[in-house]
Amino acid sequence: MSKVAVIGAGSWGSVLANVLVKNGLDVKIWTREEKQVAELNQQHTNRHYLPELKYDERLIATNDLAAAIKDRQVILLVIPTVAIRTVSQKIGKILQENNEQPLIVHASKGLELGTHKRISEIITEEIPAENRSGIVAFSGPSHAEEVARQDITLITAASTDLTAAKAVQKMFMNDFFRIYTNEDIVGVELGAAFKNIIALGAGALHGLGYGDDAKAALMTRGLAEISRLGVAMGAKSQTFIGLSGVGDLIVTCTSVHSRNWRAGNQLGQGIPLADVIENMGMVIEGITTNKAAYELAQQQQIDMPITQAIYQVLYQGCDIKKAITELMQREGRSE
Amino acid sequence: MSKVAVIGAGSWGSVLANVLVKNGLDVKIWTREEKQVAELNQQHTNRHYLPELKYDERLIATNDLAAAIKDRQVILLVIPTVAIRTVSQKIGKILQENNEQPLIVHASKGLELGTHKRISEIITEEIPAENRSGIVAFSGPSHAEEVARQDITLITAASTDLTAAKAVQKMFMNDFFRIYTNEDIVGVELGAAFKNIIALGAGALHGLGYGDDAKAALMTRGLAEISRLGVAMGAKSQTFIGLSGVGDLIVTCTSVHSRNWRAGNQLGQGIPLADVIENMGMVIEGITTNKAAYELAQQQQIDMPITQAIYQVLYQGCDIKKAITELMQREGRSE
Repeated sequence: MSKVAVIGAGSWGSVLANVLVKNGLDVKIWTREEKQVAELNQQHTNRHYLPELKYDERLIATNDLAAAIKDRQVILLVIPTVAIRTVSQKIGKILQENNEQPLIVHASKGLELGTHKRISEIITEEIPAENRSGIVAFSGPSHAEEVARQDITLITAASTDLTAAKAVQKMFMNDFFRIYTNEDIVGVELGAAFKNIIALGAGALHGLGYGDDAKAALMTRGLAEISRLGVAMGAKSQTFIGLSGVGDLIVTCTSVHSRNWRAGNQLGQGIPLADVIENMGMVIEGITTNKAAYELAQQQQIDMPITQAIYQVLYQGCDIKKAITELMQREGRSE
Repeated sequence: MSKVAVIGAGSWGSVLANVLVKNGLDVKIWTREEKQVAELNQQHTNRHYLPELKYDERLIATNDLAAAIKDRQVILLVIPTVAIRTVSQKIGKILQENNEQPLIVHASKGLELGTHKRISEIITEEIPAENRSGIVAFSGPSHAEEVARQDITLITAASTDLTAAKAVQKMFMNDFFRIYTNEDIVGVELGAAFKNIIALGAGALHGLGYGDDAKAALMTRGLAEISRLGVAMGAKSQTFIGLSGVGDLIVTCTSVHSRNWRAGNQLGQGIPLADVIENMGMVIEGITTNKAAYELAQQQQIDMPITQAIYQVLYQGCDIKKAITELMQREGRSE
């Protein structure tokens, strides 16, 4: 497993590619943007995303998808959820033509709008079974900025096929980047997606002026409700208290680096949703995942008060102060 | 349940007393310090602990323990773990003489040094069964400062006797202070105690210069190990992902208000333990709880790498940078 294609050169994709090069692997990174390709290959920087980082010179960028994935043992997808189906389709066709069968790894955190499908389900549909040797979800509490400066980070590699998860563990593992395997890919993907909803809520509480007690309570009750929905969808409850569950929830809900938290914070300050989306200039997965989770909760008849309150704010024009205050003042009950 | 004695007038005790007075209850608060009694009764302040707060004038302070608990339906203990046995003994004797049977509530977070007993176990031993109508543990993610300014806070009231827990819920419940009941008092007390160990570790990581990824990972793996020990000691694993478990863990590990976090942070910066203890000027429960948990883990043969690493630093003179680095660089494994 020494030849890797990383698809997507945002902060996370480019940092992961750099870690793999430093670990001695042969890595190509794909991005649509010609300018970014030139910058990565010539200046070895990616300033729009990580202004400080000097990338390893052995990292090769290309905007030719077929050239990027040709003769690669591993394809790592690090693109927004909304692009997963289209890109997987293209990759599937190229692999079919070349008659190749790489391991597919993804680091995306969301559900498909409308279908509510997990990332690995979309990949399963778009890349033929004979053109992939396995699917692994890669997720955990991680800021690209911290991995870039070689701070210690622990991540989960999840697959129904433990051998595939272990191969990913081996590729990435070094002194500062620690990989744990997990066989519950359903729980890892759902935790990664749903935690962004709670991050929106935690940000909103902050924007409204609430303190650490309220945020910790929201995160606790939020973990309980996303875990309930996850278990109803086939996840193991244990996974929600692992790195990709509570770990990622904590980092996303308590760090100003998180775009979902920042979006919630702006909403809490009274900034209209359309302006928040424009201000962010990046995909805010929590907004679409909230809709998916809201609809799934209705289908599965699961009580998700935080998800419901945020849905009312995002999609039904409910005043955020009213929604959050009502949420926090529900009847006292047992845990 | 309208007549309450609060024993202990630190930040948390005095704020809880104030909440109860505002809720319309008749509350007396006990503290040893004559000066503090005078300040609370005359200026209605408690400046050493909460310089900003003006207490309700109906709150009556006394340094006479017998007068404080006479004719009270509820006694709420908010004192350091190390004082629980002595004070409970005194209260037990007074209740025996007066032939009274109040509900006993405690908000302490620790285990007895040497015996490793939980707070409610100590109370059971020191207050005769005929002189108490129940024992409730009161715990959750809460900063006295935030409750003082009426920020929203959610707390667990735990008792094997659900009626007792519900009585406490009813006493405290208002618009900003929300109480959840729980029947697993073992899990609530152990979570409250053990989380301070992880807070020491999170503070140490911060002091050593690590980032949010490392802290979230430590909190996740920390939750897993204290939950393992808790379950071996009779707690429900579910309780560790509730308000008194992960909720309190989050607030303690991510807030600079937390004295355990601050102590860990100083240790991480290389300040010797003796100086840290002196600098803090308050009880650091995590230090003694670490010893208890370390010994319990050995007895129960439970793997607690974080607790063990912190024990080596606190009690075996191990260098903190070495201990923490080794901890974070353990073999990759499955979750």
